[in-house]
Amino acid sequence: MKIPEILLVETFQKPGALASVLEVIAEAQLVIEHLQSLRREQGRTLWEITVEIDEQAHPEFYGKINALPHARFVGKSDRVFNRHKGGKIHMEPSLQITTQQILRDIYTPGVARVCIAIRDDAAKAALYTNRQNTVAVVTNGTAILGLGDIGPVAGLPVMEGKAALFAALVGLTAYPILIDSKDTARIVETIVSIAPSFGAIQLEDIAAPECFAIEAELVERLRIPVLHDDQHGTAVVALAGLINAVKRVGRSLSSSVVGQVGLGAAGLGIARVLRAQGVQRLLGSDLRADALERLRGLGGEVATVPELMARSDSVGATTGGRGLIKPEWVRPGQIIFALSNPDAEIEPMAALERGAVFAADGKGINNVAAFPGLFKGALEAGVPRFTDGMLIAAAHALARRAGPEELLPDALNLDTHRAVTAAVRAAGVEPVFSAL
Amino acid sequence: MKIPEILLVETFQKPGALASVLEVIAEAQLVIEHLQSLRREQGRTLWEITVEIDEQAHPEFYGKINALPHARFVGKSDRVFNRHKGGKIHMEPSLQITTQQILRDIYTPGVARVCIAIRDDAAKAALYTNRQNTVAVVTNGTAILGLGDIGPVAGLPVMEGKAALFAALVGLTAYPILIDSKDTARIVETIVSIAPSFGAIQLEDIAAPECFAIEAELVERLRIPVLHDDQHGTAVVALAGLINAVKRVGRSLSSSVVGQVGLGAAGLGIARVLRAQGVQRLLGSDLRADALERLRGLGGEVATVPELMARSDSVGATTGGRGLIKPEWVRPGQIIFALSNPDAEIEPMAALERGAVFAADGKGINNVAAFPGLFKGALEAGVPRFTDGMLIAAAHALARRAGPEELLPDALNLDTHRAVTAAVRAAGVEPVFSAL
Repeated sequence: MKIPEILLVETFQKPGALASVLEVIAEAQLVIEHLQSLRREQGRTLWEITVEIDEQAHPEFYGKINALPHARFVGKSDRVFNRHKGGKIHMEPSLQITTQQILRDIYTPGVARVCIAIRDDAAKAALYTNRQNTVAVVTNGTAILGLGDIGPVAGLPVMEGKAALFAALVGLTAYPILIDSKDTARIVETIVSIAPSFGAIQLEDIAAPECFAIEAELVERLRIPVLHDDQHGTAVVALAGLINAVKRVGRSLSSSVVGQVGLGAAGLGIARVLRAQGVQRLLGSDLRADALERLRGLGGEVATVPELMARSDSVGATTGGRGLIKPEWVRPGQIIFALSNPDAEIEPMAALERGAVFAADGKGINNVAAFPGLFKGALEAGVPRFTDGMLIAAAHALARRAGPEELLPDALNLDTHRAVTAAVRAAGVEPVFSAL
Repeated sequence: MKIPEILLVETFQKPGALASVLEVIAEAQLVIEHLQSLRREQGRTLWEITVEIDEQAHPEFYGKINALPHARFVGKSDRVFNRHKGGKIHMEPSLQITTQQILRDIYTPGVARVCIAIRDDAAKAALYTNRQNTVAVVTNGTAILGLGDIGPVAGLPVMEGKAALFAALVGLTAYPILIDSKDTARIVETIVSIAPSFGAIQLEDIAAPECFAIEAELVERLRIPVLHDDQHGTAVVALAGLINAVKRVGRSLSSSVVGQVGLGAAGLGIARVLRAQGVQRLLGSDLRADALERLRGLGGEVATVPELMARSDSVGATTGGRGLIKPEWVRPGQIIFALSNPDAEIEPMAALERGAVFAADGKGINNVAAFPGLFKGALEAGVPRFTDGMLIAAAHALARRAGPEELLPDALNLDTHRAVTAAVRAAGVEPVFSAL
């Protein structure tokens, strides 16, 4: 498996020294993700070169760099690990606790008054606690990234990453909750038991097909928004990208034939939102009979991957299967989103070389653009659940904010998340206004 | 029931104006907890006067202030509620997420490397996540403060208060977890299911006797520290205060007769730690047969409250019963800790007037001095559970830090918590050293 490594390489300050290193990297068929100089002194330069590499496949790679006359492989950077030291989130008090009077107000005895006010009117919890700003980020560790079932604790860095992004991008407090179970009923009962703690629940990296039943039962039983991000967050960014791609080539989404390869959590989420957005002709492929049954339930048509490629104007892929889409299947004019991380079903360059008009992978189309605003908007609207209307509103808000050369806007621009938040909130409160 | 209110009273700037207001308060038998001027202009002064008042018992109180010639009752301050607006805690990212490179390091794809490292060596979770700095503050809302069973959501302000104190005093991240159940088995299973999320678990405001079984089963099943604060946090501060009181009157704790009125969560916790500290003669009173059975299990002797008062050198009370201890039962030289909040079993002044050498209530002896350092020390030591040795070490650390006029040190002084943390950590790692 390819994982991102940051290589530390030292070169002499001679013409061609860095180029010779890049040649070795190119010969190994590796793409350079990032490159910067860290230090330049004593006639030498230290470079940080980020590549995604499967080290098993390249046993002699580092030796080849060391064999160059003007370069030396120093080692691998610990930068990713350094950035994780001590974790990525921490709680802060929202006010300074510096005097006995403040202590007595926020703790005993003063806090009793607030407890009584909430006992007498539960709605006051939204005003006098942080609950309406909180999201539980819940996983059982069965489908962490593309790594599969690595257990809940090994998934914690991902949950903390989500929580750090919730805090940084929309100011929400997210609690990573790791559930030590693969039993659907136990997972549901556990979440129902602790649900009063939170304003909303984000299910995360729970394997299909269990994720569908877990989400459905929680939506049925709880009166707070519940959303499986792998399904619907991915669906929102995929739809947003597709809206822009289709518009730029002058087509209409509703009259397009759209194919979805892989109908697990992400694929089914995409299929659902495409149908809700009005896509009439939807093709889908999967190895599992239950997945194909769900596709038919949405009004989609089953196809093999080659058939789907031959008939679709736009293709999404979320299989986790590296290289599953053969370049020769790509037809000129197709839009191809091969979203599996870390290894796409087809590299965007390969698809573009075969005539695709737009091609993107999971690095370009990532749900970090969607999930913070989805939850912030739902919490601000105070709705009991997410609706298709809210997901579609988020996708259109994202599509509108993308620059002329982009499919999606910058996920680190806070305005992106403000726009999604506003759109979701408006879509969430809409039924209330129309009922007036 | 008495609850703290902050009265806003305006007086003309005339001699005796404020005194006349205080006379009305005195006539109502109310004690002034705090008083300050907020504003002084146009010949008038606005005062903020904090009293604990049962308004039902004083229907004409505010009218009497308004009837004064030079004063006016303006209203009640919303200061406590204002300090609760939006809640008392929020999550922060531990690093700035300002560039795509940082995003790629802490989220996909970089985070995958950290996940793999933890999958391969679970101990790395302590290094690369915030988990070893986290505490779940868990309640089911059945015994919130002295308010009783007001439900988990109404208890959230207390849990957020604990979390704010954890953050402010020892830098731990605490998650309020509200469990919507009164069923012991369901509560235990829920906590076991989510336990991988946390470094430690603080049980909070769960009613006796269920709290005993819940704690015992969690300690048995989990390999992280679990502590019911109402029992053991209270026990630590009570023991610390008692160590100082006994020392100052030149007695020895082990040769004292100690009485404990009320053997619910707090009372049993105190009884347990007293026995662990070497108290030989322990008397106890409670209305419940199962509570008395637990006392006998600890080697204590059952007594009625008058008997207990007649025989004990030191008396603790944790019944929730206001005025339960009659002043005439107090014997000269007794030490009396009447710890129920908000209403003590006997007011410290009343006990002192009858000859008690030390008398304190739950405002003076509060577990906020203990719980932050207990958890910080246990987490730093990396122990799988709390031991009596750790509780006793915490109590002695607190006792040592109290000034010559104090029973306990200042809970807002961070050095207090550093001392408790160091003592608990040392007591926690001790068995490892002695095994070398």
